[in-house]
Amino acid sequence: MLAVRLENGIVKVRERPRPRRPEGFALIRLLEAGICNTDLELQRGYYNFGGTPGHEFVGEVVEADSSDLVGQRVVGEINLACGKCEWCAKGLGRHCPRRTVLGIVKHPGAFRELLTLPERNLHRVPRGISTEQAVFVEPLAAACEILDQVRIPAGTRVAVLGDGKLGLLVGQVLKAHGAEVHQYGRHKDKLRIATNAGIEARVARKLPQSEYGLVVDATGSSDGLRQAVQMAKPRGTVVMKSTVHGVVRLDSAPVIVNEITLVGSRCGRFEPALRLLRTRQVNVENLISEILPLKDAPLAFRRAAAPGVLKVLLKA
Amino acid sequence: MLAVRLENGIVKVRERPRPRRPEGFALIRLLEAGICNTDLELQRGYYNFGGTPGHEFVGEVVEADSSDLVGQRVVGEINLACGKCEWCAKGLGRHCPRRTVLGIVKHPGAFRELLTLPERNLHRVPRGISTEQAVFVEPLAAACEILDQVRIPAGTRVAVLGDGKLGLLVGQVLKAHGAEVHQYGRHKDKLRIATNAGIEARVARKLPQSEYGLVVDATGSSDGLRQAVQMAKPRGTVVMKSTVHGVVRLDSAPVIVNEITLVGSRCGRFEPALRLLRTRQVNVENLISEILPLKDAPLAFRRAAAPGVLKVLLKA
Repeated sequence: MLAVRLENGIVKVRERPRPRRPEGFALIRLLEAGICNTDLELQRGYYNFGGTPGHEFVGEVVEADSSDLVGQRVVGEINLACGKCEWCAKGLGRHCPRRTVLGIVKHPGAFRELLTLPERNLHRVPRGISTEQAVFVEPLAAACEILDQVRIPAGTRVAVLGDGKLGLLVGQVLKAHGAEVHQYGRHKDKLRIATNAGIEARVARKLPQSEYGLVVDATGSSDGLRQAVQMAKPRGTVVMKSTVHGVVRLDSAPVIVNEITLVGSRCGRFEPALRLLRTRQVNVENLISEILPLKDAPLAFRRAAAPGVLKVLLKA
Repeated sequence: MLAVRLENGIVKVRERPRPRRPEGFALIRLLEAGICNTDLELQRGYYNFGGTPGHEFVGEVVEADSSDLVGQRVVGEINLACGKCEWCAKGLGRHCPRRTVLGIVKHPGAFRELLTLPERNLHRVPRGISTEQAVFVEPLAAACEILDQVRIPAGTRVAVLGDGKLGLLVGQVLKAHGAEVHQYGRHKDKLRIATNAGIEARVARKLPQSEYGLVVDATGSSDGLRQAVQMAKPRGTVVMKSTVHGVVRLDSAPVIVNEITLVGSRCGRFEPALRLLRTRQVNVENLISEILPLKDAPLAFRRAAAPGVLKVLLKA
């Protein structure tokens, strides 16, 4: 079978043996997968990664212990937890200290024709959600994670910094939740997607200071956190949704003087994301820039990294 | 009257005119004042400060609109708020955007023989609390602020990083609140103060990783935040209690991956601090390294900045 591999920062497509299916796991045939900024960071050396990346996918179950799964179209939670520790007992396998992570930490990713995941990680994709849409379940769940971490009463004015893929999902999720969302970005065309979703979008020239009780940094830039802190009111909250690798500069004085709370935010539960897609409260199709075959992964990675490009999908 | 002044980083003692008392203000004769790390930072140029510093004080009211205040021994909240804005209406004058701050922002400080503060900022010192003890009400209130910001159920295991003045107050406040406090520092003699207060104190050689649901960074060091983040469990909270001037380096990856919450924490209400002193739940006398006369302020600042020294008091 074909598998994409990152080898010293180079994207290769190789012929690899079909993966072995351990007990409790499903063997899944890839349908489509999405290239995430984290994949681009892995290519740059994040986590000293080498191997098959990919963690946003939709597939069809080929083999499984549970026969009713076979033939189903599924998406999969990316953290492979031990199922036994205190974190797993709390339903927070995403923080299991013994976890591996699909396409990120010690479990080969989804950019291959066949992949494996524990059956308990899988969610069936309802008929009303297309395969292209379902590729967005994982990043949409990451956007929904904010709602599990921070209390946001309806009508709250929220600033979302950044108009990339994740920022545009976050804006829509918070809007669907009932917040008054102001999206700040640098790209008129990307902000138009927010505007079309009924969000007030503004090209970020001069950012307002001490204006919002809640600010989400989804810039993906090392300067985003500093800007977000300046936009927050005293006693306000800044959600750190940017996956920036390495050390960021933080001026701690305004955080302390204004008693700002910073909340690190990562993966989320899939259920709310599937619900938002099923009920069409979030529009993801207009985030797709291009769909390329798996064998063209090197080109797809280049396109995904190009300025102005949103989501690039790989089709098996 | 004598007044301490910071002039281009030099501590001077000058003869100055007696301050005018505006309506609603009290004129207060200084009894004793404490030198805080913030004063040392002001000396180094923090806030581009020039003038009279000092915000930890006990005084006796000489003149006031309210005649019953005259002759009373008082401590004073340091934020001079407008009393009219939304923050003031919420009882959070500490965050009033129009505030001045005693000895820090646009209001001359307490290191002078006579000072002024709004009467509404004053709290009488109960007879059972000595003047030396009462000097600690302001920093003790800053330690108590953590309890207003973060929910800490009794028995919670908490790490306090740092064995300086503020760290030792924080440890005692959390202990009095019912937490199981582990204090980490570098100075055996300072940690003994924590041990005497019934706190488990440990010389920080190798700090435990991912061990605490709550970590307070009171190191005053630019590296403290990074260490505190590493000590916190996934979904844990780090309280930023260090007044470090300037930019700190923050590795955002563990904050995001482990979904850590960082809480900036500054000044607090005086009531809980006065209560802790009155009920003798916190011991502050053993934090006093030296008491010097106001006229020896240059020496006092040098002593306060010397390694191993805890609180230096100025006596009028």
